[in-house]
Amino acid sequence: MGRIEVIPLAGIPEVSEGDDLASLILDAVGRESLALADGDVVVVKHKIVSKAEGRVVSIDAVEPGRKARALAKKEGKDPRLVELMLRESVRVVRASHGVIITRTKQGLVCANSGIDQSNVGKGSVALLPVDPDRSARNLRRVLEKRTGRRLAVVVSDTFGRPWRLGQTDVAIGCSGMLPLLRYAGKKDRFGYRLRVTEPSVADEIAGAAELAIGKLNGMPAAVVRGVEYDRGEGGVKGMLMPPERDLFR
Amino acid sequence: MGRIEVIPLAGIPEVSEGDDLASLILDAVGRESLALADGDVVVVKHKIVSKAEGRVVSIDAVEPGRKARALAKKEGKDPRLVELMLRESVRVVRASHGVIITRTKQGLVCANSGIDQSNVGKGSVALLPVDPDRSARNLRRVLEKRTGRRLAVVVSDTFGRPWRLGQTDVAIGCSGMLPLLRYAGKKDRFGYRLRVTEPSVADEIAGAAELAIGKLNGMPAAVVRGVEYDRGEGGVKGMLMPPERDLFR
Repeated sequence: MGRIEVIPLAGIPEVSEGDDLASLILDAVGRESLALADGDVVVVKHKIVSKAEGRVVSIDAVEPGRKARALAKKEGKDPRLVELMLRESVRVVRASHGVIITRTKQGLVCANSGIDQSNVGKGSVALLPVDPDRSARNLRRVLEKRTGRRLAVVVSDTFGRPWRLGQTDVAIGCSGMLPLLRYAGKKDRFGYRLRVTEPSVADEIAGAAELAIGKLNGMPAAVVRGVEYDRGEGGVKGMLMPPERDLFR
Repeated sequence: MGRIEVIPLAGIPEVSEGDDLASLILDAVGRESLALADGDVVVVKHKIVSKAEGRVVSIDAVEPGRKARALAKKEGKDPRLVELMLRESVRVVRASHGVIITRTKQGLVCANSGIDQSNVGKGSVALLPVDPDRSARNLRRVLEKRTGRRLAVVVSDTFGRPWRLGQTDVAIGCSGMLPLLRYAGKKDRFGYRLRVTEPSVADEIAGAAELAIGKLNGMPAAVVRGVEYDRGEGGVKGMLMPPERDLFR
């Protein structure tokens, strides 16, 4: 097992709808005097994906309905934002203490349906990509075609956790890799079968990228090199807890 | 912002009660032709900490009580293991679908009270360290004394997550660093105040280390270099969700 390196990609400019993310990323890779190598994982913050896909909404244009107004009042939030949270979700999981947690249409459980006000611009918010696994796949294909390398792509977002303060970056989409590393059936040094251990390498990669990316400098992407993962196309979709096994509905 | 490197520490031998972890780690660092530098974070899997602290229990010596026997029957588990889970916890958070989630005496919410059967040896299990922040602090102090460097230590464990399959490594103890990076009050590129963003660098560091450590090869430690964090002694304790704000009790 070797070392892992996380290389933040500086200098990616403001992204607008229709921008070619692959070019912006490859330009940034070039500025780092880097060449992508087989096995590299390119991590992109969902926000630049959302912007490139036109998933930015002007908050003034949103007309909150009755349910949104009631929930906004209860939790002390902007009713227009809450209206968007409801539109982007299939279910409110918890709303309490000023926190609104939903299951999004993508199947993700997170605060505010993943709607983000930071680094977007005054009066606008970014919604999650409609299908982050597809976004990752599209980006991976273009990057692979232009570089001739076998790559993986992780689209990341910043999520809170139920029993800990703070947040970690997790994968909301991936391509070119299975999100879980399957040790199941393998044995440890004492012959004990590691039945249940399936490390979420996609989430750990997203978190490792965040350590290098930070938040204030606006760097939206990183390359993670040297990680062991299984190639495949299950997507983050395939890692979500099936509702019938969800103990925290 | 610079690059981050994760260096797994190979060749740490089986650990027994009373072993000097700092020496084992510094020997392994030496074998990597490495010298610890100011700011390096040493990540150790809790299991070697537990073993060094004598937190290994022979499962045959455990006499399950009535509550443990009932819960074990319901969830299809070894009643002696369930007895230990109950002894190590203050509350069962969920028990369903063959999964037992507790709040441990350390305040952690996790499966099986963090009791671990893998890589321990037949008939024995490892309990969590009594106070993982203290374990981290003790190790950090010895490492700093012997190297003359300012270091941080993270004690990690592998936790499941409520809405995703698989696991990630998280920090259960830390020293020499605050587990959360406090952006609160700072502003993003558009002047939007990042009030709520506090990345859990301790957890992301634990996850990054796991990417390099893996599971089967038994490597129990890594060095993470180049991460921005705040020095301090809040410990993982200070990052746990206060019960009154816990929406998933």
